[in-house]
Amino acid sequence: MSRTRRIPVPRGPVRPGSEAHSALTPATGAAILGGFWHARRAVNATVSVPQGPGLLESAGNLHDLRLVAGAAEGAFEGDYPFMDSDVYKWLEAAAWQLGQEGPAAPAGPGDTRAADCAALQKDVDRIVALVAAAQQADGYLNTWVQAGKGGGRYADLRWGHELYCAGHLIQAAVAHHRSTGGTELLDVAVRFADHIDATFGPGKPVDGFDGHPEVETALVELYRETGERRYLDLAGYFVDRHGHGVLGGEAYCQDRVPLRAQENVEGHAVRQLYLLAAAADLAAETGDAELRAACERLWSAMVATKTHITGGLGAHHHHEEFGDPYELPTERAYCETCAAVASVHYSWRMALLTGDARYGDLIERTLFNGLLAGVSLDGDRWLYVNPLQVRDGHTDTGGDQSARRTRWFRCACCPPNVMRLLASLEHYVASGSAAGLQLHQYATGRYTVDAGGTALSVSVNTSYPHDGAVTVTVEDADGDANAAARPWTLSLRIPQWCRHYSVTVAGQRLADPVVEEGWLRVERAWAPGDEVVLDLRLDVRCTAADPRADAVRGCVAIERGPLVYCLEQIDQDGGGLDDLVLDLSRPLTAAERPDLLGGVVTVRATGRRVAAPAAAGAGWWPYREADSAAGTDPGETVALTAIPYHAWANRRDGSMRVWIPTAPPAG
Amino acid sequence: MSRTRRIPVPRGPVRPGSEAHSALTPATGAAILGGFWHARRAVNATVSVPQGPGLLESAGNLHDLRLVAGAAEGAFEGDYPFMDSDVYKWLEAAAWQLGQEGPAAPAGPGDTRAADCAALQKDVDRIVALVAAAQQADGYLNTWVQAGKGGGRYADLRWGHELYCAGHLIQAAVAHHRSTGGTELLDVAVRFADHIDATFGPGKPVDGFDGHPEVETALVELYRETGERRYLDLAGYFVDRHGHGVLGGEAYCQDRVPLRAQENVEGHAVRQLYLLAAAADLAAETGDAELRAACERLWSAMVATKTHITGGLGAHHHHEEFGDPYELPTERAYCETCAAVASVHYSWRMALLTGDARYGDLIERTLFNGLLAGVSLDGDRWLYVNPLQVRDGHTDTGGDQSARRTRWFRCACCPPNVMRLLASLEHYVASGSAAGLQLHQYATGRYTVDAGGTALSVSVNTSYPHDGAVTVTVEDADGDANAAARPWTLSLRIPQWCRHYSVTVAGQRLADPVVEEGWLRVERAWAPGDEVVLDLRLDVRCTAADPRADAVRGCVAIERGPLVYCLEQIDQDGGGLDDLVLDLSRPLTAAERPDLLGGVVTVRATGRRVAAPAAAGAGWWPYREADSAAGTDPGETVALTAIPYHAWANRRDGSMRVWIPTAPPAG
Repeated sequence: MSRTRRIPVPRGPVRPGSEAHSALTPATGAAILGGFWHARRAVNATVSVPQGPGLLESAGNLHDLRLVAGAAEGAFEGDYPFMDSDVYKWLEAAAWQLGQEGPAAPAGPGDTRAADCAALQKDVDRIVALVAAAQQADGYLNTWVQAGKGGGRYADLRWGHELYCAGHLIQAAVAHHRSTGGTELLDVAVRFADHIDATFGPGKPVDGFDGHPEVETALVELYRETGERRYLDLAGYFVDRHGHGVLGGEAYCQDRVPLRAQENVEGHAVRQLYLLAAAADLAAETGDAELRAACERLWSAMVATKTHITGGLGAHHHHEEFGDPYELPTERAYCETCAAVASVHYSWRMALLTGDARYGDLIERTLFNGLLAGVSLDGDRWLYVNPLQVRDGHTDTGGDQSARRTRWFRCACCPPNVMRLLASLEHYVASGSAAGLQLHQYATGRYTVDAGGTALSVSVNTSYPHDGAVTVTVEDADGDANAAARPWTLSLRIPQWCRHYSVTVAGQRLADPVVEEGWLRVERAWAPGDEVVLDLRLDVRCTAADPRADAVRGCVAIERGPLVYCLEQIDQDGGGLDDLVLDLSRPLTAAERPDLLGGVVTVRATGRRVAAPAAAGAGWWPYREADSAAGTDPGETVALTAIPYHAWANRRDGSMRVWIPTAPPAG
Repeated sequence: MSRTRRIPVPRGPVRPGSEAHSALTPATGAAILGGFWHARRAVNATVSVPQGPGLLESAGNLHDLRLVAGAAEGAFEGDYPFMDSDVYKWLEAAAWQLGQEGPAAPAGPGDTRAADCAALQKDVDRIVALVAAAQQADGYLNTWVQAGKGGGRYADLRWGHELYCAGHLIQAAVAHHRSTGGTELLDVAVRFADHIDATFGPGKPVDGFDGHPEVETALVELYRETGERRYLDLAGYFVDRHGHGVLGGEAYCQDRVPLRAQENVEGHAVRQLYLLAAAADLAAETGDAELRAACERLWSAMVATKTHITGGLGAHHHHEEFGDPYELPTERAYCETCAAVASVHYSWRMALLTGDARYGDLIERTLFNGLLAGVSLDGDRWLYVNPLQVRDGHTDTGGDQSARRTRWFRCACCPPNVMRLLASLEHYVASGSAAGLQLHQYATGRYTVDAGGTALSVSVNTSYPHDGAVTVTVEDADGDANAAARPWTLSLRIPQWCRHYSVTVAGQRLADPVVEEGWLRVERAWAPGDEVVLDLRLDVRCTAADPRADAVRGCVAIERGPLVYCLEQIDQDGGGLDDLVLDLSRPLTAAERPDLLGGVVTVRATGRRVAAPAAAGAGWWPYREADSAAGTDPGETVALTAIPYHAWANRRDGSMRVWIPTAPPAG
């Protein structure tokens, strides 16, 4: 191989543009080929994504596009002004799916290529044509407004979601073009983007922004895909138009304060995160140091004070919003599945921008917990909110925000969001820089990066997170049979949760591996076939929260590796969960259970069933004098089995809790 | 005095009708003449109530009535379909106010009669005339629908609030008639009630009910006031029409299950409580044993599992609804002020129906805590929701559900609800039965009851709840200078919180007072001037919650007598509240502070400021391994001052908490 050969451009999300100021660049080639994520992606590819068109038909999304295209009659069926975006997000998922690398022939039942590509391509073509037909002559496209449901174009920026839908259209078009080379949807997106650019801005017909960010990051990606600088400038205009009261000054719409001056994340979680992703994109493309500092500051504040242990974000059902610092409720945790997707988008952009490993920590935690809980193991039932507790005797009132899985939602933003993330997941694993190759996540597959003009490839083999051993084999090492190998650095993220690890390079255990800011860096003149084995010890951990996190005082969460565990009622010895305490003096042990939930590692622990303290008047009133006899009965010992949180709610309904009290009531 | 003289009928809410099956009857005469409640009622009478018309003008409520009456032009101004009810609730408050007993001349600055009755009467007359003018010829009245804002009469029973508004109109009319003898508003109410009776029912134009209960209990009261049985029957029809899916089967509308089969309170808290109050009314009037059993069962379940320590009800901001059993959040406690009013209405009806003292326990707790916190000390700023915690650094997003007091709300249901309860509070103090007189609450004043055809009067003097001594003096004792006195029983409620009390009768301390089901009963042949002194010991108590109340695990609340206390940031030694723990090994002492907040008894305690445990990675992520060093630093000792919860949020904004951790983070 020669150093002068052409290195392919990245085919996934967040491709750098022409003025990138990022520390790292995305992998130019990436394929997940086995292990944990491969199995989950196979379900996404063979169940979730193929079911999309039928569900979009049932919910009326496609009918409404046909209606405004003049290809159908009848009443408008959509319930919300943003339902076009469900179609676009599904198209984006399908587009990434169609562009996946890997063997063209099915490699086995778990292979995502086993999905029927021809059928998927047909669905995509048909829906792309429908979207194109629905577009108006001047580029505008929004079924809600075109059907006369809104008050006219851009009449309701706060709630109309027109640019939000445009953003998802653009994202889908970028994915479709980048992944398959097709231009049909990109043409639609460019026409709409040009219409928006002609409409929005100082001195243009509308000087404002959409209440739900999304078009901003889409426009940056469109700039990257087309090279058209106007789109980048328009994205910058939209980001900086926030926070000046144009939409009433509400935090909900990210309009209370400019991002550049903001001190902590606030308002509607998904809106906040999409806006931050766009700001990170802009900082990467323009080198805007102030914007970058805001992105770093807000990420740190969010992680330190407003992130659930699952990576979930959003504390209030009301307004789907962030709460105060350390306000991290359990049963009323909102943790919208879309917020987990948005968090990964934001963090990945920050990882590329800064080169820091800590962003990969949050991505890993979010992927394995807060995000993955959003979809059932069989890929066809969903959670919109992801609580950390469901009580014994919980009365579920149904609706989108139910703690029980649903086939599809009235507001179906989350399912296609999960689909598009899983379908593009291979692009969040590795990156390159002039120094070498970085592995942010551990997923069996093959990853190629551009290291300052040189292609480097590695393959990864691991059964992570069930097991902590990760084997990285150098495949293409800047080597040339005729030239001396140039040294480069393989960087492996050491997760923040990991206290004990070892690393072996070409059979030699490194005595004193250097870890800098989360990266274990191994520099050498690599040769193809060189093998690095990273062994992350997966001890079972009991984790406590900051004392200001009132909701979980006196409780611990069980964790192992990147997985957060929970107790589900069905796994215990009968009875409920709400009278259990965890006995920390007894060992907690991991147990492989290939038979359970598609194969999980459970954690076995010992607990006790503690009766509520008896007190005068007990029963009629749930409060008692603190000095009355309490906590003296140690309670009946019971064996507890915890499962990974991401696998909960896949059996019969019951109670669940992540945070478990450690002591009987006292005081 | 003679036994045969005519005893006046009760002039307050919940007057029994002709077929009452209640254990107790309301006092026939009641006046609060001094002490704690007198002062609060003076503010209500001189500030809150007189400000009503101006606020109803500013918010558009009166304009909209004029609009449909043809007496004004312009656009409809109301934001919600239920805004007429604000007017009616204010009218009800004003009517009770006008009918208050007591000295006609102002007795001092704290006397509620110091209010300008003439001005109030003028406002009432003017607004009653406006309401009458807005009524349509067939009796229908609703500005929202008449102005064409809804989809027509009764087109949206789930959200239209037409019968809810009718109910408040009827309640106001009953109060106006019962309190002042005026018939102008009663005529309007009767016309509307007849219209509703002609419209709703099996075989009538509409077979359904209003999504927000209120008309039900209003119709029972209208029956009591007019003797017209149709109104009682219509109320019974409405109550039993719930729970059969007519409005979609949602718990929110009390339509998931019939009340008679319901196991715990659910759905929108105020809707649930108004419906239960009506059911209790019906049971009292008809003797319906099944309905009575449901009312008792649901009250017990509510109190045992869904009531905050303040008496506050409602756990979710979303849908203003009850949560699961033991789901009792602190900062996101909803505890709508209206729910406190509704809870008093429900519990008082249960107290009269059953004769049980425990209903008075909840009323007392609610009045002194959850309800009274809803209005500022100066009577002109309000809380719609009553959280039990506000964090350090809380970001308030404004709006009706803010944790900061507001001059008036967009949805202003709560302020006039508090006004009408405070203006009629004297009627919730005492009752009569054939056996004698019962005191449910302790408020300085004079109370007369009908004891099986005999009038009995007592006066009460107390500085409760600051002090626990209550002096009851017999004023009119069924005595006749010429006849032997007939014995009767004075029943005094011993609060559930009270462990130590004594009682002195005519100077003699009772050695072994008998308390049965919460009542201390003293039977004797009383003579005018006989004095009973009840001394309730007001120890400072630290109260813990049921271990299933996860939100307050490891915390205690400070209480003294019926008052729940809280820490407010302003009273501590600088710094915030969220790093404090309470040291239970140090004494908690009460301290009179006449200078503070209009005169309160504070509680002094000792706490410690505990730093968040240091741990690897601390700061970036709020979770740490549970076995890392923690809880070893006892922290800096600080003096703490707690104030009554009802007096919070009357100084500068800051953090607040009712539940205080008792130990540093451990484990």
